[in-house]
Amino acid sequence: MSDALPPGATLGILGGGQLGRMLAMAAARLGLKTCVFEPAGDCPASHVANHHFRAAFDDAEALTRFADACDVVTFEFENIPTAALDAIERRVPIRPGREALRISQDRLTEKNWLRDLGLAVAPFAPVDDAESLRAALDRIGAPAILKTRRFGYDGKGQARIATPDDAGAALAAMAGAPAILEGHVSFAREISVIGARGLDGAVACFDPGENLHEGGILRTTTLPAALPHARATDAVLIAGRILTALDYVGVLGVELFVTDTGLVVNEIAPRVHNSGHWTQDGATIDQFEQHVRAVAGWPLGDGRRHSDMVMENLIGDDIARLPEIARDPAAAIHLYGKAEARPGRKMGHVNRRTGPAA
Amino acid sequence: MSDALPPGATLGILGGGQLGRMLAMAAARLGLKTCVFEPAGDCPASHVANHHFRAAFDDAEALTRFADACDVVTFEFENIPTAALDAIERRVPIRPGREALRISQDRLTEKNWLRDLGLAVAPFAPVDDAESLRAALDRIGAPAILKTRRFGYDGKGQARIATPDDAGAALAAMAGAPAILEGHVSFAREISVIGARGLDGAVACFDPGENLHEGGILRTTTLPAALPHARATDAVLIAGRILTALDYVGVLGVELFVTDTGLVVNEIAPRVHNSGHWTQDGATIDQFEQHVRAVAGWPLGDGRRHSDMVMENLIGDDIARLPEIARDPAAAIHLYGKAEARPGRKMGHVNRRTGPAA
Repeated sequence: MSDALPPGATLGILGGGQLGRMLAMAAARLGLKTCVFEPAGDCPASHVANHHFRAAFDDAEALTRFADACDVVTFEFENIPTAALDAIERRVPIRPGREALRISQDRLTEKNWLRDLGLAVAPFAPVDDAESLRAALDRIGAPAILKTRRFGYDGKGQARIATPDDAGAALAAMAGAPAILEGHVSFAREISVIGARGLDGAVACFDPGENLHEGGILRTTTLPAALPHARATDAVLIAGRILTALDYVGVLGVELFVTDTGLVVNEIAPRVHNSGHWTQDGATIDQFEQHVRAVAGWPLGDGRRHSDMVMENLIGDDIARLPEIARDPAAAIHLYGKAEARPGRKMGHVNRRTGPAA
Repeated sequence: MSDALPPGATLGILGGGQLGRMLAMAAARLGLKTCVFEPAGDCPASHVANHHFRAAFDDAEALTRFADACDVVTFEFENIPTAALDAIERRVPIRPGREALRISQDRLTEKNWLRDLGLAVAPFAPVDDAESLRAALDRIGAPAILKTRRFGYDGKGQARIATPDDAGAALAAMAGAPAILEGHVSFAREISVIGARGLDGAVACFDPGENLHEGGILRTTTLPAALPHARATDAVLIAGRILTALDYVGVLGVELFVTDTGLVVNEIAPRVHNSGHWTQDGATIDQFEQHVRAVAGWPLGDGRRHSDMVMENLIGDDIARLPEIARDPAAAIHLYGKAEARPGRKMGHVNRRTGPAA
């Protein structure tokens, strides 16, 4: 741990949502202090952090004060303005590094990068206007899905194209933003791997979880995924290849489709990931602590799972089921401190242990 | 959960040490906000709480502001001045209630109360001066231990009396404070039970853990304790009797000696307890969340242990072993955010999972 931040050092977190909140709690377990940078007041992470810098991401003076208060800076979301990162990086290291952010901020860049790494991805083509969409549909065919290249999450900025007749409406839904057409992948299940790479280059992965989405939002993650062992190994190898190619430091989520012919990479997220929340109750060192360990230069946990788990997101009105959930002694509750339950808003999650890991 | 505090409500915590810190983190998981009242700055609990009222326990104005900011108030240590409790209780409920505090604040009161409840305790007698000490020694015999009636913890305020010749030095060590002489109990092992009682009167207990002390300070707690099942049941029944007799709300620690003739109650602590820290990694709902659930009127967890565990305290210079501990993937690290490692100071603890619970 010669390069490691000692207890008492300060971790900076860009973004104050639930991921930042759970990162801050993990950092506290390791004796680290936390500063959160987030424009919104009363944000989830601020409740458990040592300091909350409440300022805009274009407030250069606040960014400088924030950077000077931190020993290392990480982030909970990938769409941080480049100028903000530049201002911080002049004063303190940002981990994971800029390359992972650059690639994952743009779906087209990401798909090209993954393909160039030799990984299978869905057929794709850039779309800027009706003409390029027509050409892309000719090549890829329908059904397909049109997505904005940037700033999409939880199914936002996406439009399905069931038949070529849907093309006009889908393009209109992009509102002029640069887009990417992705071909349909026929898959048996969706899985994800939460991988991590330390400052020393060591890699560790949690077992793949099986994900169910509803309306573009993750609903449940189940461990173990129903997969042949060889496929689970493939998933871990893919995560390892991505982590190493990026010279990555931290936790990274890789979403994969399981198809008859192998694994297809759907997308990567250069951060802790919703589908890794099960680790809080199913592994000794969870994804949040694993990320903090990596960016703070500590040794990584080995990713071993001690229990079988089902993680269920509590979305919007799901929170009304809290009294029932609280009566279930097998339910580990993790709420985010959000005051208002808007439709589609992630209010918390529940980890249910279903037994010891085989 | 009709009487339950909803997410977004505020839990007040008297005392800002590591127990308050871990209570605050558990409260955050349930979406509750926290206010910590603690005279010391940069205290462990303040790092993860929403608010820190930094004021003295005789600052009536600060106590009033604190009480008005909270929906319910609990505490992490039992020696809170009565006037402070009075000031708070005029405005907001304190849980657990005053009776448990009154009893556990004074070793003599506690021993009398436990005996009157029909529980086995070590022979004891009050000691105020040389004469009462002589009479007590005549009755109880040596070896014995002289303890201050109030404000003792981690072996402080205690003096061993191996032979009657030690009486003078032991009495001098009390520095004039009212004391209690406790007879020696010949025990095979020390165990503790972490019990809880909800606002609705429901009781739940964690499995007894086996404790090793060094120099009066808890060193390790091991689960399961090496006990016949019937003795483990006895321990749980004793905890249940105490909780019910006190009309208790919250978590309570009961330390017991295992002797050839049965269990002898050593002491009770009306709060979360060091010997219950293993629950953070060995049970779905840990002692901190269990306490928060109780005082917030939520349903209790059932106390079921999913893993065998060894909890090791990191005391003083033990923290220098952190680099080695961090390399152990079976070690769940919990540090308290204390800057300075003084001898005897609890800096953190480590929970090691040794396997699934049988």
